[in-house]
Amino acid sequence: MSNATFDRYYLDDLVVGQRFRSASHTIDDAQIKAFAAQFDPQPFHLDEEAARETLFKGLAASGWHTAAITMRLNVEAGLPLMGGIIGAGGEISWPAPTRPGDTLHVESEVVEITPSRSKPERGIATIVSRTINQRGETVQILRAKLIVPRKAAT
Amino acid sequence: MSNATFDRYYLDDLVVGQRFRSASHTIDDAQIKAFAAQFDPQPFHLDEEAARETLFKGLAASGWHTAAITMRLNVEAGLPLMGGIIGAGGEISWPAPTRPGDTLHVESEVVEITPSRSKPERGIATIVSRTINQRGETVQILRAKLIVPRKAAT
Repeated sequence: MSNATFDRYYLDDLVVGQRFRSASHTIDDAQIKAFAAQFDPQPFHLDEEAARETLFKGLAASGWHTAAITMRLNVEAGLPLMGGIIGAGGEISWPAPTRPGDTLHVESEVVEITPSRSKPERGIATIVSRTINQRGETVQILRAKLIVPRKAAT
Repeated sequence: MSNATFDRYYLDDLVVGQRFRSASHTIDDAQIKAFAAQFDPQPFHLDEEAARETLFKGLAASGWHTAAITMRLNVEAGLPLMGGIIGAGGEISWPAPTRPGDTLHVESEVVEITPSRSKPERGIATIVSRTINQRGETVQILRAKLIVPRKAAT
């Protein structure tokens, strides 16, 4: 959470193709059910038995839970951007479900860098973050447009 | 959470242009900080004082918190789809911040209906959900691809 200059990147420090890797987080069924009870109370996120009868064929985390864990991993040590991780928006998909016991980490890659035309102090970095489980399966792909400050302004 | 047939829509029941509206939820600063502490621990989501110095110029909810509240509102009464709300992915943006005290509701519109070519029992409904605060400002736009069962299969 500190904004120390060392090892945090301004827009000017980023290059297309640059990669970052987060630490990992193991999700259990208590976490899955607690998130679902608060934000996504559907049978396939709340109850093993009921989940078996659904498209998921077993308990699965809410996609928004996977998104939230991905954010936590990127904020903590995954994506060291100056000013923090501030998303304007993006595209998200969940190619595979997150299951109880899965250990997730995030691999991010800078795919586009766009200095703002109107605001010389910042720009947009487009970063693709893949959330990957212990079997190497990608459970989420997030292509995010992040607002990153520029060096010239400080 | 029941899948009762009455007032839940199969893919075949949906039409482009159809609209749905959720109930509302008021967010306070305790909710904002609790979500942030767990999933998005950045100063602008955790501390009023620190938030003032940032791009947000005051405490704001994590975008993923807004997304999670949007899901809750749609699951509870916003989007009555047969089989529940199962997202394959989508596009998300946050045109304005969610602030403590904001009362949010969701307005959704069906924009595309695509029966699956390979799976006759389901298809994809593309639904745009706008999350709107008490001042009429849109704080989130989610264009989601949802998996919806077809009548023929049941």
